[in-house]
Amino acid sequence: MSKFSQDSIQHDHRWMQRAIELARLGCYSTKPNPNVGCVIVKDGQSVGEGFHPQAGQPHAEVFALRQAGKLAQGATAYVTLEPCAHYGRTPPCAKGLVEAGLAKVIVACSDPNPLVAGKGVQILKEAGIYVEVGLCETEARQLNLGFLKAMSTGMPYVRLKVASSLDGRTAMASGESKWITSALARQDVQHWRAISSVVITGIETVLADDCQLNVRQLDGVADLSTVVQPKRLVLDRQGRLPLHAKILQQPETVMVMGPFRQELADLGVLQFSIQSLTDLLHTLATQHQIYDVMVEAGATLSTAFLQQHLVDEMISYVAPTFLGQTARAMFNADFTRMAEQLRFKLIDVTLLGNDVRLRLIPFQETI
Amino acid sequence: MSKFSQDSIQHDHRWMQRAIELARLGCYSTKPNPNVGCVIVKDGQSVGEGFHPQAGQPHAEVFALRQAGKLAQGATAYVTLEPCAHYGRTPPCAKGLVEAGLAKVIVACSDPNPLVAGKGVQILKEAGIYVEVGLCETEARQLNLGFLKAMSTGMPYVRLKVASSLDGRTAMASGESKWITSALARQDVQHWRAISSVVITGIETVLADDCQLNVRQLDGVADLSTVVQPKRLVLDRQGRLPLHAKILQQPETVMVMGPFRQELADLGVLQFSIQSLTDLLHTLATQHQIYDVMVEAGATLSTAFLQQHLVDEMISYVAPTFLGQTARAMFNADFTRMAEQLRFKLIDVTLLGNDVRLRLIPFQETI
Repeated sequence: MSKFSQDSIQHDHRWMQRAIELARLGCYSTKPNPNVGCVIVKDGQSVGEGFHPQAGQPHAEVFALRQAGKLAQGATAYVTLEPCAHYGRTPPCAKGLVEAGLAKVIVACSDPNPLVAGKGVQILKEAGIYVEVGLCETEARQLNLGFLKAMSTGMPYVRLKVASSLDGRTAMASGESKWITSALARQDVQHWRAISSVVITGIETVLADDCQLNVRQLDGVADLSTVVQPKRLVLDRQGRLPLHAKILQQPETVMVMGPFRQELADLGVLQFSIQSLTDLLHTLATQHQIYDVMVEAGATLSTAFLQQHLVDEMISYVAPTFLGQTARAMFNADFTRMAEQLRFKLIDVTLLGNDVRLRLIPFQETI
Repeated sequence: MSKFSQDSIQHDHRWMQRAIELARLGCYSTKPNPNVGCVIVKDGQSVGEGFHPQAGQPHAEVFALRQAGKLAQGATAYVTLEPCAHYGRTPPCAKGLVEAGLAKVIVACSDPNPLVAGKGVQILKEAGIYVEVGLCETEARQLNLGFLKAMSTGMPYVRLKVASSLDGRTAMASGESKWITSALARQDVQHWRAISSVVITGIETVLADDCQLNVRQLDGVADLSTVVQPKRLVLDRQGRLPLHAKILQQPETVMVMGPFRQELADLGVLQFSIQSLTDLLHTLATQHQIYDVMVEAGATLSTAFLQQHLVDEMISYVAPTFLGQTARAMFNADFTRMAEQLRFKLIDVTLLGNDVRLRLIPFQETI
């Protein structure tokens, strides 16, 4: 490979990293839209940058093109997701790039959305623009795990949060549990809530903690009004959710999966009579534009999600303490053989004060 | 602080780090003696280096002085542990440093051994040598945690190894447990065994696994004959250890705490009739020069060491898998209140393949 093309790959990489950085700025506010960043580069200089800030606002490419103006002519655009090809709330970005006279467009991820799926790239190519797809794809995919999964499978990306002692306990037998993990670990949970479209919990957790499950504090975000709060969904098969529960007193949408109750309907609660978790997730993704699901529940519901293989990623906070064998188990399946174990692959280990956060994905024997 | 003294501190730091690096070379072979390294520096150059390789062999200072020869005159010596002041198997090193004409001796740790305890430094000072104590002391102490603790308290340094699933289980209810942690984690255990003077286990573990608990493989050590194998000690209160157990078929000393059995005495097994773990540890340190103890046992014995506050450090291997609530608990105390929890302070987190190794020390509320 020539010196020249090595340099060129390094430059491309650097600009795409910048586009990814820009895309992340929207991580708490674009839902249900994907996070996208765009950089327009001419003669080795950035002449336009943009990211998609919020549904209803212009796409990343529009901001970048506006800033570049006439300098976009003959320039290269770096976009983290394939430019859209359809008229939605905004005109298609692929057309915008053509009209601005771009010479080259480098795309990190193609868009599996059936309304786009290769059509964006096609429009660009037909206009004679040189197009490359796949640069920094792995990193760019991380920006939109839920959106990408939902577009290609009709199911959302499910993150399960668990917090336990080193001996795998979540509370004493009495229910006492304040606090096993540190304030820093509990603060970290807020980030994962804030990138989710819904937080799912069980009625037992609501009855025990009267939890709100909303985002109350985010590192680096001074004004929480820019954050699109996740919806909250309570699994309540016996219709026990009290009308005075704190979770019902927030402005954000609350959903309940359980028997229909008129008094909940009167409060604006969205109710599902669905019976299976799989159907629930499919309905959320296909009918409610909910692509990123966070599960924060007790052992029974967490175990159900795990045993039904509905968890894409587990965020596990481990506090270095022992609570003993009569304390509550974090995972309550009754396995008898090692062959039944649920194994995970570690993808990240982070120290949070005196706790450890593990990010895990289900272990695939075939990998 | 002047430029000159900043430079000088940086140089001192670098040479002491080298001395610590040298000391580590003896970590598997010096027991029961401490690990010590020494560098002699003249005009900014190392002119002699040494470490203590094995009990009965010369001390670190002797090797360094031999190498330095006449260049030691007016030079600076960096020693990780206070030079000895007594005639043991070798003449006192403090005298050797005086006779060689050193100008300056920098010591990382003073030696709490009552036979040395400040006397080494005193000999040097009385000979007009400039002495400093305490440089890189925290790191140097890590070389000899057992020796230093035993010399000052009469108790050994106890490391407890635990290996568990993410939900705190060590085996299925049936006892099936092969393998929860990865080969890499099990390999890592060999290092901790090899720096220990004894590995303590319970009779249940011997009966279940017919384990040998010796060192069979060490990263970076081609010839295992240079390793001083740890002794093995079995807690066997009912005298159930079978005479055909593999642990009795190794050349290294085996110890048993339990009722006296003539057939074990005939095999050369050292037997203790001591009843408490505290007394056992005290006896090991004060009568058998056992300063580093590793406990590798089942939940009952591990819990006993933990609840009696006899553990100085826990080496915890966590495998990212769930075994379920009927699998065996790693810690079997019956706590009912959070206030009873046994908390630890994380001092190190290391990835070992797909497992995590945590190093933990008991949490002191007063810290």
